[in-house]
Amino acid sequence: MKTITIAKGDGIGPEIMEATLQILKASGVQLKFEEIEVGKEAYLAGFTSGISPAAWKCIRKNKVLLKAPITTPQGKGYKSLNVTLRKTLGLYANIRPCKSLHPYVETKHPIMDLVIVRENEEDLYAGIEHQQTNDVVQCLKLISVPGCEKIIRYAFEYAKANNRKKVTCFTKDNIMKQTDGLFHQMFTEIAKEYPSLKSEHWIVDIGAAKVAETPEDFDVIVMPNLYGDIISDIAAQITGSVGLAGSSNIGENCAMFEAIHGSAPDIAGQNMANPTGLLQGAILMLKHIGEGKAAEQIHNAWSKTIEEGKHTADIYKAGTSKEKLGTKEFAEAIIENL
Amino acid sequence: MKTITIAKGDGIGPEIMEATLQILKASGVQLKFEEIEVGKEAYLAGFTSGISPAAWKCIRKNKVLLKAPITTPQGKGYKSLNVTLRKTLGLYANIRPCKSLHPYVETKHPIMDLVIVRENEEDLYAGIEHQQTNDVVQCLKLISVPGCEKIIRYAFEYAKANNRKKVTCFTKDNIMKQTDGLFHQMFTEIAKEYPSLKSEHWIVDIGAAKVAETPEDFDVIVMPNLYGDIISDIAAQITGSVGLAGSSNIGENCAMFEAIHGSAPDIAGQNMANPTGLLQGAILMLKHIGEGKAAEQIHNAWSKTIEEGKHTADIYKAGTSKEKLGTKEFAEAIIENL
Ligand SMILES: CC(C)[C@H](C(=O)O)[C@@H](O)C(=O)O
Ligand SMILES: CC(C)[C@H](C(=O)O)[C@@H](O)C(=O)O
Repeated sequence: MKTITIAKGDGIGPEIMEATLQILKASGVQLKFEEIEVGKEAYLAGFTSGISPAAWKCIRKNKVLLKAPITTPQGKGYKSLNVTLRKTLGLYANIRPCKSLHPYVETKHPIMDLVIVRENEEDLYAGIEHQQTNDVVQCLKLISVPGCEKIIRYAFEYAKANNRKKVTCFTKDNIMKQTDGLFHQMFTEIAKEYPSLKSEHWIVDIGAAKVAETPEDFDVIVMPNLYGDIISDIAAQITGSVGLAGSSNIGENCAMFEAIHGSAPDIAGQNMANPTGLLQGAILMLKHIGEGKAAEQIHNAWSKTIEEGKHTADIYKAGTSKEKLGTKEFAEAIIENL
Repeated sequence: MKTITIAKGDGIGPEIMEATLQILKASGVQLKFEEIEVGKEAYLAGFTSGISPAAWKCIRKNKVLLKAPITTPQGKGYKSLNVTLRKTLGLYANIRPCKSLHPYVETKHPIMDLVIVRENEEDLYAGIEHQQTNDVVQCLKLISVPGCEKIIRYAFEYAKANNRKKVTCFTKDNIMKQTDGLFHQMFTEIAKEYPSLKSEHWIVDIGAAKVAETPEDFDVIVMPNLYGDIISDIAAQITGSVGLAGSSNIGENCAMFEAIHGSAPDIAGQNMANPTGLLQGAILMLKHIGEGKAAEQIHNAWSKTIEEGKHTADIYKAGTSKEKLGTKEFAEAIIENL
C-alpha cells in the first residue's frame, strides 16, 4: 500500500486537509498517510526553513507529499516553505489546470479550460537578495538552459499526453533579452520538435491581458516562475474562485500536490473554506501514483456536488447556487455522491 | 506658445499620431510641434538607444514629449527606446488610468475606474543582465529607498488631488523580502501621512487576480515597474481594449505622454488602429501643461463619439456599436463633435 506524506499547514490548512482526507478515505482508495510537522511548529522549533530533518526524511522516503497551505512567518530570517520544498526537492514543474464550471459556478468566462505550466525553481524565486547600500537593495533573477529545457519540454509532453492542441509561451524578452530571451529562444527551438502542436509566444503583459479577457483562447501556457505565479492566480480566480484550483509540483524523484491558494488566516477555523483546491491537488496526486480510477471517481463526486448547486461561500451566488455549505458539510456532500 | 516634441513612432504609430495631432489642432489649442526622429531611423543611423543627440536636445528643450509606440529592433544590442527615455529623463512615475465606458463599449466590468501608478525606472527594467556561464544568465532587480519614496508619495498625492479614496499597494514581499519588502514597508510608512485616504496591500498574485475579477474594488494602485506593466495591460484590456488607455510618464524636469499599447505592426498602415490611447495621452499632456479646458473639450468630443457608437475595430461589437470606423474617420468624427 502506497504511503503519502501529508502536511496540514496553517490557517485554513488543517480544515481543508481534514475534508480532503475524509473524501480520500471514503473513496476506498488504498493509501496510508504519514503526517509531518512543517510550518509554524517547525519555525518555532528553530528551523528557519520551516521543515525539520525528520520531515525531510519522511518526504524523501514516501516521494509523494500532499501539502495544505502554510504561513511563512514575517521577517527577513524566514524563508518561504513552499519555495524551500520546491527547490530542495527539485520540483521543477508546477502544473495548474484552470477550468470553468459553467453553468454551475458563476463566471464571466464560461468556456475557459487552460493549464499553466510554471517553471518552479528559478527566476526571482532563487531568493538571492542583498542590500548594497543603505538605500539600494537587489534581487537576482536566474534563468538557465537546463531549467528552460526541462519545463518547456514538460509543457509540450504534457500537451501531447493530454490531447491539448496549442502551447503558448509568455516572457518579457523585449526587456530582459538575455534571461527571458533564453526562455523564449528555447521555446522556439523545442516547439520545432512538436510539429503536431500549435505554438505561439506573447509578451507577458499583453499575454496576461488576453488571459484576463479571453482565457478561452488559451490551452497550455508555459512561462517562468513569477509570471506563472501571477497568471495562475488570475486564471483560477476568473473561473469563479482561486479556491477551485489545485496544482502538482513535479520533480525527478519526488512530487508535491497542493491548492494554489494561500492559508487565508482571515477565515481560518470558521468552517468556511473551500476544500476544492486541495482536493484537486489530491486528484492530481492519485493520477500521478497510478490511481486513475479513484481520481475519476472523486472528481465525478465533486462535480456532481458542484452541479447540485452545493457551494462553499467563495462561489456561492444566489441564483446559481442552491445551498451554502461549510467546509465539512461540503465534504460530506461529496462523500454521499461517491 | 508652448512647443511640444513629438515622435511618430513605428507600426501604427504614424497613423494614430496623425489622428491625434489633427484633433489637437482642430480644438484650437495653441501649441507648436517639433518632430524628432526616434526609433527605426535612429537605430539604422547607428544609435543603439534609438535616439540621436539632436533628438535628446529637442526633448530636453521642450520638456514635454508626445510619443507614439515604437518598435525596438530584435537583437541583444538594441535597448528598448521606451525604457531609455524613461530612465534617461528620470520619468519616475507612470500613470495609467483605466475606466470602463459602459454601456458604450462592451466590457465584462462595467463600473471599473482605477488608476495604476507604476514605478518607472527601477526593478528589472534597470536592464542589467549578464551571462555567467554558457548555461546561466541573470538579471538584476533593483529597488531603492528614493525610488520607492518618490513613487509612493506620488500615488498618495495623486489620490488626494484627484479625489480618490484608496491607495492599494502590490508587491511580492513574501518571496522578495528585501526588495519588494522595502517597497511594502515604505508604503506602510508613507500611508500614515495620509490618514484621510484608505490604504491596503495585496501580494501581487492575488492582487492581480482581484483586478481581473473585481476591478471595481480598486481606486489607485501603486506598484513596482514590472507588476505595473503587466497589471496595467490587464486593466486596460478588460475595460474593452488595451487601445483605450493613455499614460503619463512624469519626472522632475520632463514629461512624456503615450498610449500604453505597442506598435502593433500586424495592423499597421491599414487605417484600422484605435487612436484613443495616444489621444488619452495627449489629454493628460494638456492637463499637465495647464490647458485643462482644451483637455476637457477634447475628452468630451471623444466621449460623445464613443457614445454615438462610432467605434474602431478593436471595440466594435455588433449590438453595442453602431458604425465601424477607420482611424481617420474616427478622428474626423471626434473633430465634428468638438
Ligand atoms: C505562497 C507563495 C510562496 C506561493 C508562490 O509564490 O509560489 C504561492 O503564491 C503559489 O502560487 O504557490
Ligand atoms: C514596450 C515596452 C518596453 C513597454 C514596457 O514594458 O514598459 C510597454 O509594455 C509599456 O507598458 O509601456
